[in-house]
Amino acid sequence: MNFKLTIQYDGTDFHGWQIQDGLRTVQGELTNALSLIDGCEVTIHGSGRTDAGVHAEGQVASVILQRRISSDKLRAAINGNVGKDVRVLDVEEVADDFHARYSALEKTYVYRILNGLVASPFWIRYAHHEARTLDVARMYKCSQLFLGEHDWTAFSAAQSDAENRVRTIKTFDVEAFQDKKAGGRIIQIKVSANGFLRYMVRSIAGALLAVGREELGPTEIQEAIDTGNRNRAIVTAPACGLTLLSVKY
Amino acid sequence: MNFKLTIQYDGTDFHGWQIQDGLRTVQGELTNALSLIDGCEVTIHGSGRTDAGVHAEGQVASVILQRRISSDKLRAAINGNVGKDVRVLDVEEVADDFHARYSALEKTYVYRILNGLVASPFWIRYAHHEARTLDVARMYKCSQLFLGEHDWTAFSAAQSDAENRVRTIKTFDVEAFQDKKAGGRIIQIKVSANGFLRYMVRSIAGALLAVGREELGPTEIQEAIDTGNRNRAIVTAPACGLTLLSVKY
Repeated sequence: MNFKLTIQYDGTDFHGWQIQDGLRTVQGELTNALSLIDGCEVTIHGSGRTDAGVHAEGQVASVILQRRISSDKLRAAINGNVGKDVRVLDVEEVADDFHARYSALEKTYVYRILNGLVASPFWIRYAHHEARTLDVARMYKCSQLFLGEHDWTAFSAAQSDAENRVRTIKTFDVEAFQDKKAGGRIIQIKVSANGFLRYMVRSIAGALLAVGREELGPTEIQEAIDTGNRNRAIVTAPACGLTLLSVKY
Repeated sequence: MNFKLTIQYDGTDFHGWQIQDGLRTVQGELTNALSLIDGCEVTIHGSGRTDAGVHAEGQVASVILQRRISSDKLRAAINGNVGKDVRVLDVEEVADDFHARYSALEKTYVYRILNGLVASPFWIRYAHHEARTLDVARMYKCSQLFLGEHDWTAFSAAQSDAENRVRTIKTFDVEAFQDKKAGGRIIQIKVSANGFLRYMVRSIAGALLAVGREELGPTEIQEAIDTGNRNRAIVTAPACGLTLLSVKY
């Protein structure tokens, strides 16, 4: 039986998604639980890897089990055998050819910035804190330059092993709202694409942070997109602000 | 100089507000920071103690310092010398006779319940998880019985050292909303009073949880309020769901 799992995790205490010897990872934790449930070693496929410290509100994974088990029982069994910082929200039995990674059509990430003098304890795990007031209108305007099909070499990890760095960004939004609990403003950078390179969202978020601080403008952003040369003012933003929101199939 | 501090803390990793030898407490952490800043041992007074695991979005404290220092500098100095799970949001210089505890007129607490099958990692630190569907309309209706001036013996710690257990509940609300991140519903029990006894909000929340599960009804609630006898179905709700929202002066 092939199952599709929708998963949340607080990435703070995980060394990312991908299984690694001797380190606590989300894939590792789920593999242990599922192997216990199925009575043999299983392989769980995520829609993609998330890096250490990155969160997920709607990661999707698929796994083939030998054992016949209902979706509800499987969800309860997994949740009973993993840490509280990872939860399976939903389990669905799917066709044999469904694969969380290869069947994915679109992913949506959000990058959250807590923009205020003080870093609220209720946001510090889930947002990057920036004390300087950011120009959100300017960030929004520049964000629209990222739409469309481009080679994202300037906005990905230098050591990325991806041969093809062309991806299509389908929607891009920057919104700000006052949050009482934050004692300030939360800025959300929300981006959907048919796929992402490593550090791509965090590089784009870093670029928009520089735009919001007026250290970079539309000319430099457009140049980086066109030439593939990373501007030195573009710093990869910290992992804690990044959350995988959803995956479309 | 007398200062009024507005403070947030994530109570998860604190043994409550009150200073205790060898344990990490909010008052202890702030006392260390302030004594360092002032160059001598200072005493900081909170509006009230919060128990281990209880959070605060707007705790208020007052402290008298020998040193002359601006409010902004004091805030930055404290925040630079305490853990990330406690932050001073605001500092205000106040008249000599202001005292965070004795000058307080009203406090507001919220008790949060995550009501859904799965306990989202993003809420589990800040809400009590209840998998059984609660009847919110029934909870709201019973909550209105708590309004007014009463002796709250049935809804406080048995070993409470308060001689006078009469307090006046001024407003009481129960509201529910869908939260995408929670993958379910959040129920908020919000209560304001001129003062609270130890375990009072958590006892009332426990009573309303029993009401929501249809284990208790308005008759039993009214009886407990009138007689001061605690019904055995009233269990003190867990600390993690409780947050001190604000203090009025």
